[in-house]
Amino acid sequence: MKTHFHTIVIGAGSGGMTVGVGMAALGKDVAMIEGHHVGGDCTNVGCVPSKTLIHEAQNFRAGMNPDDALRTTVRKRDELRDLETEEVKEIENLTFIEGMAKFIASKKLAVTNAAGETSEYTAENIVIATGARPRRLPIEGLPAERYMTNIELFDLENAPKHLVIVGAGVIALEMAFAFEKLGTKVTMFALDKRALGRSIPEASEAVQVSLDRKGITSYYGATAKSFNEATCTLTLVQGENEIAVEAVDKVLVAIGRVRNIDSLGLEQAGVTFDLRTGIAVNSFGETNIKGVYAIGDVTPTSAFTHSANAQGRRVVQRIAFPLLPIAKKEPLFPNAIFSDPEVATVGLTPAQLEASCHQNAVKRIRVDLKGNTDRAYTDGIEEGFIIVDAVRLTGQILHATIVAPHASEMISFFTLAMSQKISLYKIYRLVYPYPTFSSGILKVADFFMRETLTNLKTEIGAYLRYRFARPKNN
Amino acid sequence: MKTHFHTIVIGAGSGGMTVGVGMAALGKDVAMIEGHHVGGDCTNVGCVPSKTLIHEAQNFRAGMNPDDALRTTVRKRDELRDLETEEVKEIENLTFIEGMAKFIASKKLAVTNAAGETSEYTAENIVIATGARPRRLPIEGLPAERYMTNIELFDLENAPKHLVIVGAGVIALEMAFAFEKLGTKVTMFALDKRALGRSIPEASEAVQVSLDRKGITSYYGATAKSFNEATCTLTLVQGENEIAVEAVDKVLVAIGRVRNIDSLGLEQAGVTFDLRTGIAVNSFGETNIKGVYAIGDVTPTSAFTHSANAQGRRVVQRIAFPLLPIAKKEPLFPNAIFSDPEVATVGLTPAQLEASCHQNAVKRIRVDLKGNTDRAYTDGIEEGFIIVDAVRLTGQILHATIVAPHASEMISFFTLAMSQKISLYKIYRLVYPYPTFSSGILKVADFFMRETLTNLKTEIGAYLRYRFARPKNN
Repeated sequence: MKTHFHTIVIGAGSGGMTVGVGMAALGKDVAMIEGHHVGGDCTNVGCVPSKTLIHEAQNFRAGMNPDDALRTTVRKRDELRDLETEEVKEIENLTFIEGMAKFIASKKLAVTNAAGETSEYTAENIVIATGARPRRLPIEGLPAERYMTNIELFDLENAPKHLVIVGAGVIALEMAFAFEKLGTKVTMFALDKRALGRSIPEASEAVQVSLDRKGITSYYGATAKSFNEATCTLTLVQGENEIAVEAVDKVLVAIGRVRNIDSLGLEQAGVTFDLRTGIAVNSFGETNIKGVYAIGDVTPTSAFTHSANAQGRRVVQRIAFPLLPIAKKEPLFPNAIFSDPEVATVGLTPAQLEASCHQNAVKRIRVDLKGNTDRAYTDGIEEGFIIVDAVRLTGQILHATIVAPHASEMISFFTLAMSQKISLYKIYRLVYPYPTFSSGILKVADFFMRETLTNLKTEIGAYLRYRFARPKNN
Repeated sequence: MKTHFHTIVIGAGSGGMTVGVGMAALGKDVAMIEGHHVGGDCTNVGCVPSKTLIHEAQNFRAGMNPDDALRTTVRKRDELRDLETEEVKEIENLTFIEGMAKFIASKKLAVTNAAGETSEYTAENIVIATGARPRRLPIEGLPAERYMTNIELFDLENAPKHLVIVGAGVIALEMAFAFEKLGTKVTMFALDKRALGRSIPEASEAVQVSLDRKGITSYYGATAKSFNEATCTLTLVQGENEIAVEAVDKVLVAIGRVRNIDSLGLEQAGVTFDLRTGIAVNSFGETNIKGVYAIGDVTPTSAFTHSANAQGRRVVQRIAFPLLPIAKKEPLFPNAIFSDPEVATVGLTPAQLEASCHQNAVKRIRVDLKGNTDRAYTDGIEEGFIIVDAVRLTGQILHATIVAPHASEMISFFTLAMSQKISLYKIYRLVYPYPTFSSGILKVADFFMRETLTNLKTEIGAYLRYRFARPKNN
């Protein structure tokens, strides 16, 4: 039994698989260690089952059985998991090791399997890709069988009559819209002041209008006080008020995630980390210990499957081709939320924008789909927009958020434009198919150009004065 | 009553409106002449009602009344038409003239209104934007009330039980999929050898599989022989065979379009034209007569609303800012077909590709959505792909076709990449949201890079030998 490898990957989720499969394909001797299921959260309790459920919910109509949608979701998840589990074991150059890994030195791991046996492994490179787990929230009086996180959610056999969702982030919103379509009554509450608190407020507003129209009740700035099993009533506290949420079947807690770094023995490896922000890495995913890398949810970077994959690809390039020049800067990480409508973003967050640019140096263009795209008219779309923050005068794009039925498929246009520094002037020259929501991109460019060219003196003045000025504290 | 204008636009369709409204906004004295409805085909009998119907059909389920979908379509079309008709009459600097225009000299028009009165108008610039009308096909024995083109189609009050569609192009396909969803039995036949004969064969195949699965019967290389009203049977001829299509309610003829240039008096204007290919224009839309322009369906360029609009924008720039540098080359015109799945294309057609490049200089990359994107797995998508033709070694993109549920929203990524000459190497560096169909773009770039880098010598050799070689006649 081999105990030394070129590269060991801890965690067979999306990011880890990218590294393990990629390195093995390059002929490197790789071990992959996994304590739970191959595929990680994405395949098992994340993107795959959630998007399957969202798709089933979209096609759900009166007269159909919502439990069938759940069954299809579980079946497809299980089939994919089985396939991936089979596949990973058959990859040339890749040794699959089941068990929980713990550092006992910077390049040495102890792996304990289900039977309690421990083996030791060493490697020239170790990649930490252990992901994250849902943050739990005790609710007084709530029995375990009513309590779910995204882990238990996809084992549900019956659609709840009334589902309470704690949280207002990505998972909370996606599941709220999906279960509402399946005929479940949905009530949401969150400590946050608004839905999708990390998005721009305009996105929260659009999603909130949609929540309200669909009859999904939502309480913000609210916490759970207790659950009364006799009456199935959940009592919330919102400021001075107590709110009784009645006839509750299940509670889904989706209040964020905890990085799986607390039982890895990182101290023994000498790896610098912070339980709150994760494992510190440079732009190539390398930790303070040479040859020890971290990718995905355990790092401070965005917690999306595609981010983990992208980080994984960079790590493969870095380890396998150390002399090859790789862009020093990490790529732009877009994100997409499969709510209804979808929300997709790329570029600077509001906080980053505020920290890096004087507010007078930036022009925000907002184009509502309704009134600006005939597709919104034909499809009866009320909410939705394209918002772009661009540098005044130059039209260089700093941030784009799209709220639209297929925003997740539209955002890559802006990822490309931003990565290649293509200004709104050039975007104005393109032709967009009619009638699409994407034709709103032309309006964005058109508004920017018109405002700039008709006020050229002001715009040049503002550019010269504010572009490289310190951000204003406001 | 004014009779001389800075610019006269003939035709208040999408293209004409772009010019008329654009010039008026710039303070130019504009007249717009329209013989039928404001909004042209797009608003009245084209994109707007067809996309409304497609949307209604997508949301149609058993138990609903298909006639409601038709009513909604007509109502929304009429509301938009009324709004546009009101608006155009209230635009500052714009005179709206109802009637049919005919050139009596190169810058002089005679306009005859509904009452038969004729007035004469002159202008420094005349823009011809009279569009096209459906090509008609007589079918022996078929009564007028059963015969429809896209003009009569959107006056339908009841969904036919059995609709026969003649043709296999854009309108034919879009309406076949829409009516099938509304519960109508659909039979298609066409002289063409395949559906969407102008697309790459792979797109036709994908759409054909979808037609077949949905139970839409299609006959290719077939013509109508006659209709028997007593038995409601349409007899087709396909090679040696006669085919009886029974219980036919309506026949939609969608076999292409005829340019509205035959009664414009173009000879009096001295404008060069060809009844088959249209009015000859340079890349700025100008005809052989200085100051006489043509845009949209009357030109040889692609017959899409967005192409007409784009040409219109260029004409506005050219007339209003003659000294401003405008890109000499016309922009890339993408196109999108709202079939199920959608088909979207940008770049060289197969014929253009064959004429301009040696086949050995081009690498075709095909990424099927199924098996390559997890979104296809979660959404149960069978057909669909991203196909890219790129120059070997350099990765410069020459053509892209996407067949996918939202291909129309995805294609602008490639329009941008091609316009800005962004190679597949750069596209490989981007991060695409997971799980989307767009993530297939990464696979395209990945396959291209892997094939190129692992066969670098061959690829360099092929590039040097074939990139600037004459296309091979094959």
